[in-house]
Amino acid sequence: MNTLNVKAFGTVAPEADLKEMTINRRDVTSNDVEINILYCGVCHSDLHTARNEWGGTVYPNVPGHEIVGRITKVGNSVTKFKVGDLAGVGCMVDSCRECESCKEGLEQYCEKGNIQTYNGHDKHTNQQTFGGYSERVIVDEDFVLRVPENLDLAATAPLLCAGITTFSPLRHWNVGPGKKVGIVGIGGLGHMGVKIAKAMGAHVLVITTSLAKVEDAKRLGADEVILSTDKVQMKSHAGTLHFVLDCVSAQHDINAYLSLLKRDGSLTLVGAPEHPLPVAAFSLIPKRKSFAGSMIGGIAETQEMLDFCGQHNITSDIEMIRMQDINKAYDRLLKGDVKYRFVIDMASLKD
Amino acid sequence: MNTLNVKAFGTVAPEADLKEMTINRRDVTSNDVEINILYCGVCHSDLHTARNEWGGTVYPNVPGHEIVGRITKVGNSVTKFKVGDLAGVGCMVDSCRECESCKEGLEQYCEKGNIQTYNGHDKHTNQQTFGGYSERVIVDEDFVLRVPENLDLAATAPLLCAGITTFSPLRHWNVGPGKKVGIVGIGGLGHMGVKIAKAMGAHVLVITTSLAKVEDAKRLGADEVILSTDKVQMKSHAGTLHFVLDCVSAQHDINAYLSLLKRDGSLTLVGAPEHPLPVAAFSLIPKRKSFAGSMIGGIAETQEMLDFCGQHNITSDIEMIRMQDINKAYDRLLKGDVKYRFVIDMASLKD
Repeated sequence: MNTLNVKAFGTVAPEADLKEMTINRRDVTSNDVEINILYCGVCHSDLHTARNEWGGTVYPNVPGHEIVGRITKVGNSVTKFKVGDLAGVGCMVDSCRECESCKEGLEQYCEKGNIQTYNGHDKHTNQQTFGGYSERVIVDEDFVLRVPENLDLAATAPLLCAGITTFSPLRHWNVGPGKKVGIVGIGGLGHMGVKIAKAMGAHVLVITTSLAKVEDAKRLGADEVILSTDKVQMKSHAGTLHFVLDCVSAQHDINAYLSLLKRDGSLTLVGAPEHPLPVAAFSLIPKRKSFAGSMIGGIAETQEMLDFCGQHNITSDIEMIRMQDINKAYDRLLKGDVKYRFVIDMASLKD
Repeated sequence: MNTLNVKAFGTVAPEADLKEMTINRRDVTSNDVEINILYCGVCHSDLHTARNEWGGTVYPNVPGHEIVGRITKVGNSVTKFKVGDLAGVGCMVDSCRECESCKEGLEQYCEKGNIQTYNGHDKHTNQQTFGGYSERVIVDEDFVLRVPENLDLAATAPLLCAGITTFSPLRHWNVGPGKKVGIVGIGGLGHMGVKIAKAMGAHVLVITTSLAKVEDAKRLGADEVILSTDKVQMKSHAGTLHFVLDCVSAQHDINAYLSLLKRDGSLTLVGAPEHPLPVAAFSLIPKRKSFAGSMIGGIAETQEMLDFCGQHNITSDIEMIRMQDINKAYDRLLKGDVKYRFVIDMASLKD
């Protein structure tokens, strides 16, 4: 098969910094498109994988799964895209396409495991997939998204992971007009959750540990903001929420947030704390509450999210960085020092 | 208000044995019926309350909320029952009737708290309610159930708590033909769960820690039985179940049971372990699973359950005891030494 050399930024070992490297990608096959990457968001998963914190990282590793750019080449069977189109790629670049989940358009839950945008297994080249910290990416058109033309393109990149990760559970648990929704944890995920839940028509309550985020949460669209450390505020909102989206990836007391739910309410985790979270039986039983999890979204739903964001003029709050500053950005990410997503200007890779 | 003296069996302190006593109940008001109690099941909650293990027990305490008997008197506005009818009373004898939950027929989740059959607050007498370990009980007809005439009456008593506690979540989470359901913990609750899930048309997998219960689980109706201690068996059933009903009230590894669920599956807790259960984020997120709780059922659903059990000829497996043997029965209950529910022959109270 034809392959091509592509300039990228990646890492060769868990403890190594990311640096410029050349990777080898497949050339477009009949169903592929080639995307010239313009912007790539920086997700905490990038850092976890680069440093092998979840295990299983194959090196060299090139992170990046919040990709936007323009199509520069299309395979001869491609029908959805033409050269010059804006395009996006999220966390997946393929799946088995045959299992129950894939057939239902829930490729993220593919029974055989979806093929991740980086550190996945490319069936064509039989090597690991490489992510968006690079000049170009080649992806099957079925896993490429149309990107609205009206949005700021750099600020659109994070929608491909942070956007869909919050949109999907908000849709699945029927958030909309007449519903009161809590968003816990205002960071890369949570700030998107606030914007999207508000645009869906819900009444949005932000629950934060940080007094410094109160005003910002209101600016993002929250109707109310309470401090989780204030027991009086927490108690006054007990039993009032239909749904809670929990975007916290640090350890936290899940029972305190479950107490905010009404009967039949669900709290859904999209952050992934390292250690198990203790859940009291009496946090769930007396009002038939649920504690659930959700992972990104399917391709059709990701397209729906992008179209929704286009209609409602929703993008991420970002801080743009140069590719060469990624290691400093990782350091700041670990301190939560970003409002609310780093996005790499991929033009800098050409410097 | 008219009151009457009723012979009962109860306790005057957490550490005291239960013994015969006389209690004072209201006489029937216009909406009440009087029931001559024929049988009363013994629930673990009886023991918890008698011994004040959950706190808040008001003494004297007369337990018992799995009550069946015959109507001996009706108030002048009563329309559902006449003297001589079979009748049942479960865990509740009233609720606020005005909140959202009550209006939806979910009195068990009454926003103001339902009025429990024992150790609740009787609005008429302004004293604690007394349960079914007694000759007679007076209850508002709206909280009294019709009992099918075709079932063994003693073995029907446990349906009023153990039956509805398992029936309600099985119905709520849409268990039926084409669904694979796991039942964890084969005791008073779990053995009812197996019978009811099977009668609903589901494929039933019992997961037990006890080799001794394998044959019995099959007799109860299980299609398959696996040992939770056998990692190979557990792994071979990973990702296969639509729903798991968890009837274990001891500490247990919830993540092991969550692993058995398919995408979008729920594990629902009806037993109440004393300490919080650690739940790993990755037990929920990758397949959008839920960990939920459920508490008894509403009055309309309890009637539906009794009618269902009448149609399918389902009762509890019981061991009959005399009222005077209740303290010995509690000792055996603590050892799990009962298959699967003690039922008190209330005629013994007349001895």
